[in-house]
Amino acid sequence: MDERLQRTAAAAKSVAADWAVLTNFDSVCYAAGHVVPIEAGTSPFAGGPTTAFVGADGTCGLVAANVEGGAANASWADKIVLYEGFTFDHPADLGSNYAEAVTNVVHELGIGGVAGIEPASFPAQLTGTFDRTVDLTHPFQRARATKTDAEKVLMKRAAEAAAAGQRRFRTATRDGRTELDIFADIRAAIENFAGERVAITGDFLSGKERTAGFTGWPIDRVVNDGDPLISDLAPRVAGYWGDSCAASVLGVPNEGYLKLFTAAKEALDRAVEIMRPGVVIADLDAQLRAHVARAGYAYPHHSGHSLGTSVHEWPRLVPFENATLEPGMFLMVEPGAYDPAIGGVRTEWMIEITTDGCRPVAPFEHLPGISSGE
Amino acid sequence: MDERLQRTAAAAKSVAADWAVLTNFDSVCYAAGHVVPIEAGTSPFAGGPTTAFVGADGTCGLVAANVEGGAANASWADKIVLYEGFTFDHPADLGSNYAEAVTNVVHELGIGGVAGIEPASFPAQLTGTFDRTVDLTHPFQRARATKTDAEKVLMKRAAEAAAAGQRRFRTATRDGRTELDIFADIRAAIENFAGERVAITGDFLSGKERTAGFTGWPIDRVVNDGDPLISDLAPRVAGYWGDSCAASVLGVPNEGYLKLFTAAKEALDRAVEIMRPGVVIADLDAQLRAHVARAGYAYPHHSGHSLGTSVHEWPRLVPFENATLEPGMFLMVEPGAYDPAIGGVRTEWMIEITTDGCRPVAPFEHLPGISSGE
Repeated sequence: MDERLQRTAAAAKSVAADWAVLTNFDSVCYAAGHVVPIEAGTSPFAGGPTTAFVGADGTCGLVAANVEGGAANASWADKIVLYEGFTFDHPADLGSNYAEAVTNVVHELGIGGVAGIEPASFPAQLTGTFDRTVDLTHPFQRARATKTDAEKVLMKRAAEAAAAGQRRFRTATRDGRTELDIFADIRAAIENFAGERVAITGDFLSGKERTAGFTGWPIDRVVNDGDPLISDLAPRVAGYWGDSCAASVLGVPNEGYLKLFTAAKEALDRAVEIMRPGVVIADLDAQLRAHVARAGYAYPHHSGHSLGTSVHEWPRLVPFENATLEPGMFLMVEPGAYDPAIGGVRTEWMIEITTDGCRPVAPFEHLPGISSGE
Repeated sequence: MDERLQRTAAAAKSVAADWAVLTNFDSVCYAAGHVVPIEAGTSPFAGGPTTAFVGADGTCGLVAANVEGGAANASWADKIVLYEGFTFDHPADLGSNYAEAVTNVVHELGIGGVAGIEPASFPAQLTGTFDRTVDLTHPFQRARATKTDAEKVLMKRAAEAAAAGQRRFRTATRDGRTELDIFADIRAAIENFAGERVAITGDFLSGKERTAGFTGWPIDRVVNDGDPLISDLAPRVAGYWGDSCAASVLGVPNEGYLKLFTAAKEALDRAVEIMRPGVVIADLDAQLRAHVARAGYAYPHHSGHSLGTSVHEWPRLVPFENATLEPGMFLMVEPGAYDPAIGGVRTEWMIEITTDGCRPVAPFEHLPGISSGE
């Protein structure tokens, strides 16, 4: 049995639930190994959320529309019921078909009793199946915070995809191109690495105003020599998210930019020095902020976050998090420095907590400038 | 009041609902003008689905996470409640924040009574707000089938974005490039047209086997001279989907391919000749299939579909649809012809039904071959 399934079952048990009922795309991916497609939004051929049921003994049921058949059949669910979503030669009542598929799985696996649910996406139509529901969010988050051996391979591959994008960022950024043109080349590098289309989130920003504003997707702004850029790339490969952020000026960075860049990059270096099991996250967060503050700057966002089948998972590196680092956590660390008169810098790596310290995963080089010959 | 809001209210009234409660991303976009971002899946900072409430008099309430604040403030909702999803300096309980925002809107607008809902996405946590729920799916689909004047502008722009992609398909397709490389250029053309990132679905296929299989996203397959290609591009621009499909051989098409191509393209031409108000959709579907059958081929998919804020809307052009064409419908028409020994062809345009006939919207040229000099 996949260890993720065991952990899901244990999380359900911890809140006295008989079944975990998972309806978020990332949770279904984690517990059942079913990579729900996300890039075009919910399928118009779905009658309900793709749903995984996990019993206390690790039995796993999966309900998905037929358009997700390929992905579902690659999952490790014991019982997969695909319902008719897409048809062309006879009508399909999507809602009824989803409900019937659920009834089928419920009957086959003896599902009932207390359900551990995800309230943000638990559909009203599943309510009648259970005596009672309890919120599974908190224990399920914690069960996922350290990665299994199988997940470590997936995390590394996702980080490598992000790094492939960051290398392309440096060669694709040239005077006169739009952010969208550069981002298209970056995406192609990531997708060629993965061998398939890849959902990507993050930020792609150029110019003083946009980089100082620190967040946003690429637009048709033309990049010119001297512009600061932020390239925050989070690709989803085989259901697992990588993440990364590089910042550079196109051309030779001036003194002000170098000061910003150094503040952020040194804070990241400091994180690599101090991250190890037992470190309290609030303390880590405080140290990174203090380092940037000594240079006269601050960043209006978290210092980082865990990730996996969701691009933001628990724990987040925030001032109010009193949990400690544990071996097997994979954390994004992303200190920044922003100045409206100069622009913004954010430098981010994925960092794995080891038994006695930490190591960056598939790190790419952080450099303050991009020369036009790259 | 936007006509879409009026139509939503009328749909709710038709099933004796006091309020329409909309939780699908496309429905929220239609009724409230709030373009929910979709490309990276549900936000990890959401405590529930972005939700629109529409009263019988057209009053509109909207609940969204703060990360969607920009889009929400551009909507036409009367009452917008943004709840804390993303925070970094204090904790946020996403589920409670969503629930509290809903309570706030419910109180302010006097929401209650009978709710017209979308069962596929109606969350259990909204159940207690209403005396009773009724299924709004069917009347809401029908309310959206003809486009308002404001929507016609958006449909045309989305079709133009697709056409920009199809023109780029012809110049980007060269011997030795991967499907992903070509698709990246196509995406860049579409995104530069739109001035922003664009969600895209559809298919991109090369080679006999993949094109004969008719569906799938691009992979790292290398395209060679003589390969058939299918470029089915459906971009979402400002919340509205365009769609389109071109098919070509890279190089000079042989006789077998020309036969396939002609069967599909002539069926499309036939559609433009016969589509007008009053035509029964099942008859239209039958005529297109009959035309392709006379050439010895068939297509295992619908003949087309409506679209708008969802990429597939009612009515679909299928054998079992007895509705008639009406002025103001925007329909994708996409007859195909497939032969495992040759490959596949699908030729698709967006077609607007006018008062006395129809017209293709932003049509691009359908050509059977791509010469290397393009």
